[in-house]
Amino acid sequence: MELLTIVTMLALIEYFYFGAKVGGAREKYEIKAPLTSGNEMFERYYRVHCNTLEQLISFIPALWAFGYYVSQPYAAGLGVVYLLGRILYFTSYIKDPSSRGVGAMISGIPCIILIFGGLIGAAISYFN
Amino acid sequence: MELLTIVTMLALIEYFYFGAKVGGAREKYEIKAPLTSGNEMFERYYRVHCNTLEQLISFIPALWAFGYYVSQPYAAGLGVVYLLGRILYFTSYIKDPSSRGVGAMISGIPCIILIFGGLIGAAISYFN
Amino acid sequence: MELLTIVTMLALIEYFYFGAKVGGAREKYEIKAPLTSGNEMFERYYRVHCNTLEQLISFIPALWAFGYYVSQPYAAGLGVVYLLGRILYFTSYIKDPSSRGVGAMISGIPCIILIFGGLIGAAISYFN
Repeated sequence: MELLTIVTMLALIEYFYFGAKVGGAREKYEIKAPLTSGNEMFERYYRVHCNTLEQLISFIPALWAFGYYVSQPYAAGLGVVYLLGRILYFTSYIKDPSSRGVGAMISGIPCIILIFGGLIGAAISYFN
Repeated sequence: MELLTIVTMLALIEYFYFGAKVGGAREKYEIKAPLTSGNEMFERYYRVHCNTLEQLISFIPALWAFGYYVSQPYAAGLGVVYLLGRILYFTSYIKDPSSRGVGAMISGIPCIILIFGGLIGAAISYFN
Repeated sequence: MELLTIVTMLALIEYFYFGAKVGGAREKYEIKAPLTSGNEMFERYYRVHCNTLEQLISFIPALWAFGYYVSQPYAAGLGVVYLLGRILYFTSYIKDPSSRGVGAMISGIPCIILIFGGLIGAAISYFN
């Protein structure tokens, strides 16, 4: 399960990087805690970070379920697509939030495949 | 561990459905990213999604800990209660946020049992 | 893997406690759902809870990766540091949000060590 661990840790490093950018934006745009709004640019960084958290809660368990019951290398491959999709999501959201769709899809579709693949794989294994 | 995987994937599909409803509400009530407020109905969908994320971070690890150290079928059974409680939480929150209590309890209590059961089961196993 | 399970369940109980404080603050400061702002004190409790969720999504997978590929007792030890750092984060944030830095570091640094340690451990295992 090394490949799945490596992809998971890379996803956390990517997420950590997005979080560091929120911290930087908090300083730059002078948004004092506990506020999370008040400046459009800060809010963009903040929302990318939130949205990535919303994805990770699905991505990580589904990556492992798919990797265990279907195929570890395919799970890892879909994981790499997710990682790249998130980079595009980040860069496009910061530039213009209305352009975030493509990055959202490139990172979201692998998650959907991993979830349904993991579900079907586990169900087949259970009924055999 | 097939049953735990199946319940986990179903919880992610439920969560994904709630997320899709947030996306729909964003269009319908014309809340432009990065905004997450400005319309009461949108905020209801958004909060259900957030609250479900807050639950999933506990539910998934605790489901597995309980399933591994206590009982897999009981873990899965509590997981099904959680899944149903979340549906009630969603429907009641959208109708009237002040009525969300019952759904919150039906999904929250299984989580508490899973966490403490998993903790006690692992501690007993460790000291034996 | 009992130690990792025990630390994970303790982290979830800590998080659950922070969530209960948000619920209490919601009542006390009369912030009606779906609102999450409108009172500075409520927002402090709310942000501690959110920020802990943001940490848990990294902490739990990284704890297990490090525990599996590097060392279980060291992972558990770093986990205890994380747990204590979160308590300091909570108490200092509630008192004065600008003083949250030390608690954030004491809980954040163990996460970074766990992530990179888990990544390196898995990579070494993969290439051997």
